[in-house]
Amino acid sequence: MTSEKQDTDLPVGRDPTDDLWDAMFTQRAIRYWQDKPVPRELLEKVVQAAAKAPSGSNTQPWVFVVVDDAEQRAAIGAALRGIFETAEPLQQLIAAGEKSDDKTERLMLTGARAFFTQLEKAPAMIIPCLYQLSSPTQDPSTLLAGSSIYLAVQNLMLAARGLGLGTVMTTAQMMLDAILRSTLSIPDDAHPVALIPIGYPDANFGPTTRKPLDEILRWNRW
Amino acid sequence: MTSEKQDTDLPVGRDPTDDLWDAMFTQRAIRYWQDKPVPRELLEKVVQAAAKAPSGSNTQPWVFVVVDDAEQRAAIGAALRGIFETAEPLQQLIAAGEKSDDKTERLMLTGARAFFTQLEKAPAMIIPCLYQLSSPTQDPSTLLAGSSIYLAVQNLMLAARGLGLGTVMTTAQMMLDAILRSTLSIPDDAHPVALIPIGYPDANFGPTTRKPLDEILRWNRW
Repeated sequence: MTSEKQDTDLPVGRDPTDDLWDAMFTQRAIRYWQDKPVPRELLEKVVQAAAKAPSGSNTQPWVFVVVDDAEQRAAIGAALRGIFETAEPLQQLIAAGEKSDDKTERLMLTGARAFFTQLEKAPAMIIPCLYQLSSPTQDPSTLLAGSSIYLAVQNLMLAARGLGLGTVMTTAQMMLDAILRSTLSIPDDAHPVALIPIGYPDANFGPTTRKPLDEILRWNRW
Repeated sequence: MTSEKQDTDLPVGRDPTDDLWDAMFTQRAIRYWQDKPVPRELLEKVVQAAAKAPSGSNTQPWVFVVVDDAEQRAAIGAALRGIFETAEPLQQLIAAGEKSDDKTERLMLTGARAFFTQLEKAPAMIIPCLYQLSSPTQDPSTLLAGSSIYLAVQNLMLAARGLGLGTVMTTAQMMLDAILRSTLSIPDDAHPVALIPIGYPDANFGPTTRKPLDEILRWNRW
């Protein structure tokens, strides 16, 4: 399987890794970017990895819109900033979180402000869309629809981590539905499920901490 | 990060790999199992990997019920077999698929029959459940709920692949809701989102084939 391994001549970013466990255990939300375009061959590679994920009856009901055009990123970023500036509860939530005693929360909320106000600084964004969904459901609004695309989203983000590119999983596509459809010509029968900025990170990867295993694993009965 | 790497003394299965790209590019649905229990340390490791995935506001709204008890597996397997035996449209679909000229479809549908009629042959099953979901939605029936757990499911399956264990993503939990809740004491406020058999495979991993990149990737506009 060496043919599938990371091509050594790709212009990888920070702390690249081909190690499965390192990639999973150090995948951290990245919300700050170097001002440096991402070569399309890297973006193609993360989409190729996404497409290897399982989906209902292997139907692969997805299209990935990759936005690296500066004007389009500016339009999407301006729209998100506009929403943020009129969303007082969201602003208050973030302002409070930025003063939290908990460092992780403080960093997350400071990063959230950067995300909402400067999204266009991400050199690229990927919008995974459900398209021609037929299995295990035809209804793209349901939990089960998620089972046919979010596994691919995780492959995409792990591939990015492997290549030393930062990403953050967001569902900002919900707020931006109209602008995404108009700016990117997304048709009515396609359904954005995430908005994932991607670029060379100006922040560090993990390791990350999570709930202990005994809180989240049950043997044979809840 | 060597501490996170695969422990060399774990009793790994077929074609184990620590390579991120190999794991993603050879993850194939496995529906046949060796008659050999899976040590709990391996099952713990795949759940630990699952928990490293992103979730809305890092809330980690999940519990993984791991079923390795023979009686409970038999009860769940019998329930699924019972559903299959009375579901004539499903039987006809599978019988037709088993005669398909397309080899991939034939294998998938033959495997589906094995899944529906002999699920208890899987040495273990993992039931990921949404629990205490609060971000990006509180409604576990929605697409957005999926964004806070299916990424973890993919980590789980990639970790299994890395360890040489086979899995198959299924949404059979939908048909089995009542029996899973009673057999495994799953409370009303937890929501199974998948049923994933896992074990030492009696089948080969990939490489897998998928739609070509030009069908699924759009640059800057649909």
